[in-house]
Amino acid sequence: MHARFYAPDADAAGDLVDLPEDEAAHLTRVLRLRAGAAIRVFNGRGREFDARVERAGKGGVHVVVERSREPLAREARVAVTLAQAVLKSDKLDEVVRDAVMMGVAAVLPLVAARSEVALAALQRGRRQQRWQRVAVAAAKQSGRAIVPRIMDPVTFDEVTARLAAMTLPGPGLMFVEPSAAAESVALADLDPAPPRETTMIVGPEGGWTREEIERASAVCRLVTLGGRTLRADAMPVVALAALFAIWKEL
Amino acid sequence: MHARFYAPDADAAGDLVDLPEDEAAHLTRVLRLRAGAAIRVFNGRGREFDARVERAGKGGVHVVVERSREPLAREARVAVTLAQAVLKSDKLDEVVRDAVMMGVAAVLPLVAARSEVALAALQRGRRQQRWQRVAVAAAKQSGRAIVPRIMDPVTFDEVTARLAAMTLPGPGLMFVEPSAAAESVALADLDPAPPRETTMIVGPEGGWTREEIERASAVCRLVTLGGRTLRADAMPVVALAALFAIWKEL
Repeated sequence: MHARFYAPDADAAGDLVDLPEDEAAHLTRVLRLRAGAAIRVFNGRGREFDARVERAGKGGVHVVVERSREPLAREARVAVTLAQAVLKSDKLDEVVRDAVMMGVAAVLPLVAARSEVALAALQRGRRQQRWQRVAVAAAKQSGRAIVPRIMDPVTFDEVTARLAAMTLPGPGLMFVEPSAAAESVALADLDPAPPRETTMIVGPEGGWTREEIERASAVCRLVTLGGRTLRADAMPVVALAALFAIWKEL
Repeated sequence: MHARFYAPDADAAGDLVDLPEDEAAHLTRVLRLRAGAAIRVFNGRGREFDARVERAGKGGVHVVVERSREPLAREARVAVTLAQAVLKSDKLDEVVRDAVMMGVAAVLPLVAARSEVALAALQRGRRQQRWQRVAVAAAKQSGRAIVPRIMDPVTFDEVTARLAAMTLPGPGLMFVEPSAAAESVALADLDPAPPRETTMIVGPEGGWTREEIERASAVCRLVTLGGRTLRADAMPVVALAALFAIWKEL
């Protein structure tokens, strides 16, 4: 198959669009393609096209959009927003990559009480922009024509406030340790009929505080994964795989 | 809770046992425990006990086994053997760790046509011993009282031969790309009634060859995961989570 690039401006056959800088560099410097080369482009919002390189050089890469194509990867019927506590070092990069490859609709990074990083530090470090680039790369690699949005990091309180105000897709599912909450349900007890959309909330290395669990229990269900102790960075992909399995998305 | 150690010789209350060298070092040098300290031990075969340090020093650590305890982590009802193609660099270490934390019964490392390593190199590098140590650490961390056996690495042909001879637990489930095989089934189409035991086979970075898929199709079912493209090292934990979800183990 022809090489595949992210072209956010590609909307219809006949469009003449520029590739973003990273994509242009990939096309010219890594793959060494030139004017005339046949490629594929996807616009990050679900559309994919055959395309042809019109011009490639110092001024960037211009591409003629041709025939519309079926994207390689089918999108999940459930739009899952992953509200994920920020993890140590660069571990959220890997979580974003795997969650995008699995098929999430969006990622909302959150700073929990036991996240070992401050919101201000994430903003100064322009982490959201980096995670968004990771999401583009993962969409390219996995054949998705949708690039999930990586939202600006927020506090845990902001997540519960958004769920209460229904500005995040509900119903929310918060994954907790079995010992953490009496009112939790096992994943096996969730309704196997998939919702149209949901927000799943996954915690940091040190787990949730009692206060966080209490506040969340008012706006979402508390779900356990069979008493297993997993690494914090394995949790989101395990929970996502398990949810998609019971909803027959796998 | 008291610190927890692997004591393979602990079988019954009253036993006086030595801890293995790694565990003794952990007890004396990391946790700095001394004679009289209350600990917990598990024997790797499903038994867990209260215990007390009898002597700790240059000659090793001797422990008196006391009352039998319920292990922290419940074992899965399905005994899953993960037959996993060896991956690049040290990635199989992480796969072994996560698979043990998820609850596999055993791991059989295999060298596939596209594994970029030779069986002889694995044996020279004493990799099986290293993976077994990873399995002990993961069992400690996840509260399992069973240490899954990491078998000696074998060729792919040996895996299919063992499945055919039923010296590996069947039915076998081989995870394949959707494009790879016409006769594959989606995970959602598997019987939700859990088998007593099974072998799941997961491939290397480059995927299976046509010949491998053909040979395997005679002795196991070919299963796809909804057309998703995942990293090779994410595949085993995703497949395991999905299987445990449909079998109501999560």
